[in-house]
Amino acid sequence: MAALVVGHKNPDTDTIVSAIAVADLMSKRGVEAKAVAQGPAVPETLFVLDKFGLSQPEVVSGVAGQKVILVDHSDLAQAPADLKDAEVIAIVDHHKLGDVTTSSPLLMWVWPAGCTGTVIKAMYDFYGIEIPKNIAGGLLCAILSDTVIFKSPTTTEDDKKAVEALAKIAGVSDVQALGMEMFKVKSAVDGVPAKELVFRDYKDFDMNGKKVGIGQLEMIDISMLDKVKGDLAAEIAAVKADGRHSVFLLLTDIMKEGSEMLICSEDAGIVEKAFGVKGDKSVWLPKVMSRKKDVVPKFEAAFKG
Amino acid sequence: MAALVVGHKNPDTDTIVSAIAVADLMSKRGVEAKAVAQGPAVPETLFVLDKFGLSQPEVVSGVAGQKVILVDHSDLAQAPADLKDAEVIAIVDHHKLGDVTTSSPLLMWVWPAGCTGTVIKAMYDFYGIEIPKNIAGGLLCAILSDTVIFKSPTTTEDDKKAVEALAKIAGVSDVQALGMEMFKVKSAVDGVPAKELVFRDYKDFDMNGKKVGIGQLEMIDISMLDKVKGDLAAEIAAVKADGRHSVFLLLTDIMKEGSEMLICSEDAGIVEKAFGVKGDKSVWLPKVMSRKKDVVPKFEAAFKG
Repeated sequence: MAALVVGHKNPDTDTIVSAIAVADLMSKRGVEAKAVAQGPAVPETLFVLDKFGLSQPEVVSGVAGQKVILVDHSDLAQAPADLKDAEVIAIVDHHKLGDVTTSSPLLMWVWPAGCTGTVIKAMYDFYGIEIPKNIAGGLLCAILSDTVIFKSPTTTEDDKKAVEALAKIAGVSDVQALGMEMFKVKSAVDGVPAKELVFRDYKDFDMNGKKVGIGQLEMIDISMLDKVKGDLAAEIAAVKADGRHSVFLLLTDIMKEGSEMLICSEDAGIVEKAFGVKGDKSVWLPKVMSRKKDVVPKFEAAFKG
Repeated sequence: MAALVVGHKNPDTDTIVSAIAVADLMSKRGVEAKAVAQGPAVPETLFVLDKFGLSQPEVVSGVAGQKVILVDHSDLAQAPADLKDAEVIAIVDHHKLGDVTTSSPLLMWVWPAGCTGTVIKAMYDFYGIEIPKNIAGGLLCAILSDTVIFKSPTTTEDDKKAVEALAKIAGVSDVQALGMEMFKVKSAVDGVPAKELVFRDYKDFDMNGKKVGIGQLEMIDISMLDKVKGDLAAEIAAVKADGRHSVFLLLTDIMKEGSEMLICSEDAGIVEKAFGVKGDKSVWLPKVMSRKKDVVPKFEAAFKG
């Protein structure tokens, strides 16, 4: 039975492409593996899959009784709910180490890089396996997406080197143009329900025992969101009401290089405590581009003490 | 300030040598690092350090406020007690994934291999850094120790390949003879207090909420333990009385390829449930060589249901 390669909930481009690439790589190493996902691909990812001729992974609701390879996460909150009844045989990731544990030794490739795609590029090289052209294109886009075309503070030299090498394999001559084309697709919000926007790239965290949700929308220009901002605020209030202490939504402006954060929390002072900026319903946070690097650690510290 | 590279409690040869090697490797990659240990080296390890001219790492009682690289474990129970007040920047290991978590992305090299030393050999190769001759000798012995000269079921092809390459670098022509010499040192128990023998290679586990201790002595011939067996039984009873549900001591016979297990548990049926062999104070378990592979998973399953 093929091992299932699965990324996190609310899959983004990195999670979907990483599942496809790791399934390819592991199968070629003799470990039969199949890419799956915990949800459908978002428009940005569909653009990438279509551009490079990759198939959308099958959406699965559970993994019980299966061998599983986790990509792009190591937190139980972001893994399939029945992961405890599966056997995790490998993890490929670029986040902080989460609370997944195993009962047997496993393979882990985890780097403090901007994208899981960068780690996977290194794995192909390490195991001496050629990267298929279409997968190289997908990994390239995953890195451009996660690093916001190298503008995110999570970007590392490894990410840049991987993009350079992957662009050659995929036959992409203008990486910047490809990145902008992808982010334009991501920025198209006309007619998209507010709920879908909030959950497009949304993660729940356990912060000192409190359930905290943080969503993020990365836009070429966040003024495109002006007319739906009221709906987004109402939507995060509904998400918070569903058993959460706080829900935050980052509206990240790629060109202005900062984020407006919509706030809905039981603790009126938590954002000021975390960022030193006062705000009731929303604040502008200059230079804040990365949920992982700029936002989560600050909230974690603020919730701790 | 140098990052501290630290292995598990009750350090064995793999944990000590891995700390030394990873400190060397990371320092050469530009991350200043220093090998430390949670306890003094055991006789086997002292033999290895002396044979290859390596220094015993400084014993530290805490790591609070420091950057830390964990080697050979990822369980809080086996890490320094104040690890929560330190920043884990990397983990190099070959065990099941434990409950250490981090608040920032990190580097992880974790393989399902027989020894952390095998993973470190691959790291040197991957980063293009030459392995110093003395460290190659230490890593070689770590692998021979952890795999019981390839007799343990945890042994992988990667371990064998690493030993072959490391032996060349270290100038060791007869790997088997070196292994036997090392295990003879390990088997010398005359005049050693029973308590020291129990804790020589001892680990506590959380099994379904119960604290379970498992020690292991690997001997060329376990009949050498006949005259101290009563003392060992008394000692594990004392360890159990100190807040544990069960304590087991494996007396592993390298030549006979099996283990006698001394038993002290609140659940008289747990050993039969785990291994299908009845025994009150002790049982003989043929082919059981590895605590990690042959023993821990079976107890975990037995304690679960």
